[in-house]
Amino acid sequence: MRILIDMDGVIADFEGEFLRRWRERHPAGFYVPIENRTKFHVIDDYPHELQPLVSEILLESGFFENMVMVPGAKEALEEMDSKGMEIFICTSPLSTYGNCVLEKYKWVEKFLGPAWVKKIILTRDKTIIRADILIDDRPEVTGVEKEPSWEHILYDRSYNRGINKKRLTWENWKDILLSSQRV
Amino acid sequence: MRILIDMDGVIADFEGEFLRRWRERHPAGFYVPIENRTKFHVIDDYPHELQPLVSEILLESGFFENMVMVPGAKEALEEMDSKGMEIFICTSPLSTYGNCVLEKYKWVEKFLGPAWVKKIILTRDKTIIRADILIDDRPEVTGVEKEPSWEHILYDRSYNRGINKKRLTWENWKDILLSSQRV
Repeated sequence: MRILIDMDGVIADFEGEFLRRWRERHPAGFYVPIENRTKFHVIDDYPHELQPLVSEILLESGFFENMVMVPGAKEALEEMDSKGMEIFICTSPLSTYGNCVLEKYKWVEKFLGPAWVKKIILTRDKTIIRADILIDDRPEVTGVEKEPSWEHILYDRSYNRGINKKRLTWENWKDILLSSQRV
Repeated sequence: MRILIDMDGVIADFEGEFLRRWRERHPAGFYVPIENRTKFHVIDDYPHELQPLVSEILLESGFFENMVMVPGAKEALEEMDSKGMEIFICTSPLSTYGNCVLEKYKWVEKFLGPAWVKKIILTRDKTIIRADILIDDRPEVTGVEKEPSWEHILYDRSYNRGINKKRLTWENWKDILLSSQRV
């Protein structure tokens, strides 16, 4: 049993880190509460004139390194690992990779420990990674391979609720995985 | 046709960069000419007491970013790409990833251009990447998947000459790929 786990929005609290920085910088301004987010990319939930300010936060030094862990994620990953599942952290860096690439490595080392650094796969195309399951909050995961080997299970987020796929959280993950045909 | 191309020793001149830095720093000291290298890891070709000095060079800032391109590699990659082959640059970062991870991205952007950055896959385990061919100078490429989908073709180097596998260089790559059963 091999499982690919996405990082932002699944184990790393991207939404929380963004909103914390946004509200700190623009305390009286417009913002979208996390539960009201409807677009996968946070920038698409903000008006056009504010989008440069959104990018500014996502690209600044420390953004990726300082996210907190999604509650329950560490325990879930460690339990999967201890049960002999092959776990890989499979994440796509931003095109503007200057801060994000190294910070993703540092983040995994800080929150999960050095052994987990070896399980990182950085790729813009997840469809060619062979696994049984991909846990990802992105509504559609596409790439060059039209028939990926994995079943895509959504990590449940407000912005992916319209999608008709199996979904899980770090509270119900065991039940959801057991219900997968791949297990 | 999907081909994974390793970076160090295949498209990036790791050996040349190491030896240049080594001889500059230790001009009168011991060194191993590139054609006399017999071990995959350069550090294993140096006496125990010199190994910390080898590591010092590999881990220093700028080592990965400043390698030159292996002659013919750029032309070969661009020709494969223009012929519609799906090319990915599939590379394993050092465990001490502090400089190497970001510099690999910068290197690809500098030598191949921004479009190629999207083709980078950073992974310590290449066996779970689905492709027809892996071009890699490492004698044995192993990981969790015991039956990788790719055929491993060696990039010909002095330190992998004992291995009984198909091998290529950027001079004969077209003939060698044509002889593969995967083409």
